[in-house]
Amino acid sequence: MLHRIEPRSGVAFTLKRGQRLKVSDPEGEQVADLLAFNADDVDEVISSGRTLDYASRIFLTTGDPLYSNRSNVMLRLEEDRVGRHDFLLTPCSADTFRIIYGDEHPHRGCFGNLAAALAPFGIGPDRIPIAFNVFMNVTVDGATGELKVEPPRSRAGDYTVFAAEMDLIIGLTACSALQSNNYAFKPIHYEILD
Amino acid sequence: MLHRIEPRSGVAFTLKRGQRLKVSDPEGEQVADLLAFNADDVDEVISSGRTLDYASRIFLTTGDPLYSNRSNVMLRLEEDRVGRHDFLLTPCSADTFRIIYGDEHPHRGCFGNLAAALAPFGIGPDRIPIAFNVFMNVTVDGATGELKVEPPRSRAGDYTVFAAEMDLIIGLTACSALQSNNYAFKPIHYEILD
Repeated sequence: MLHRIEPRSGVAFTLKRGQRLKVSDPEGEQVADLLAFNADDVDEVISSGRTLDYASRIFLTTGDPLYSNRSNVMLRLEEDRVGRHDFLLTPCSADTFRIIYGDEHPHRGCFGNLAAALAPFGIGPDRIPIAFNVFMNVTVDGATGELKVEPPRSRAGDYTVFAAEMDLIIGLTACSALQSNNYAFKPIHYEILD
Repeated sequence: MLHRIEPRSGVAFTLKRGQRLKVSDPEGEQVADLLAFNADDVDEVISSGRTLDYASRIFLTTGDPLYSNRSNVMLRLEEDRVGRHDFLLTPCSADTFRIIYGDEHPHRGCFGNLAAALAPFGIGPDRIPIAFNVFMNVTVDGATGELKVEPPRSRAGDYTVFAAEMDLIIGLTACSALQSNNYAFKPIHYEILD
């Protein structure tokens, strides 16, 4: 069953060990912020710092595991039609729009959307870490350290499949930040495959 | 008053708003993992993802703020005699030594040292995020995304001064990982300046 996440919104759902999550970009150049929590103990959460350390790489793709803050594998990238994602930046938020874009009446962003979607699972906003930002294209200048948010490489219909290695609560968005998706808000599709 | 952190150990202490923390490398090529929590509400914690996003840079130095997960400035780099620090990787841990170094009887690492030092402040191990790794020299290949841990640029006596912009609980280590400090465990010195 195909689910649609409307532009600038987010959802949360459970994903069982052994199931796979297919995240698709139906129109191209859109980003989906992905969070994962251990369904049996939500203090165990996806960890950028551990994952990048163990991979010794900031760019992850097919075969790479996503570790938790307790160094357990939560998800594994099983199939990746895009090959460029970000794991450095927190979900965009009202603060992002205020600080980076100068908005006076900022949108709540992926952060606010994730917080609202995760609340029924007992997960508060302070528990939201760096997300695995599916399709987000952030470049790093190795000499200066400069980060640039470039248009995603995903074209209409491209997707990435994640395999769950434990029972999870997943948070997932259609990203709300202009830079992330080349200045056009679009939906995200997802499917849970058994 | 000068404090000494013994090799492969860690401490925690309070730092008041307006005070400054001077972190020194007495022998050179050593790393100190730095964590910060709001002293009045330890659910507010230093955030790599927000700081790097707002800076649009992975390398931070004099003048740069370190943000919390609530987008408040916790610390600011006031004086920096080294100019290269890491904010991508979690503190080294027993898992690090097991996964990266293949140790059968791993040291508890900076993670274990920080967890023990922070426990009296009511901060549990699951609350330990990516640290600001003072003097740690991690390079990124912008094309491949490869991360390399190089010897720190700090020479004997070099230091960085952080100014506190809120009342904080600080966790600080003399790093336990071989790669971080060019394969020699050394102490770290710190001073609290009013």
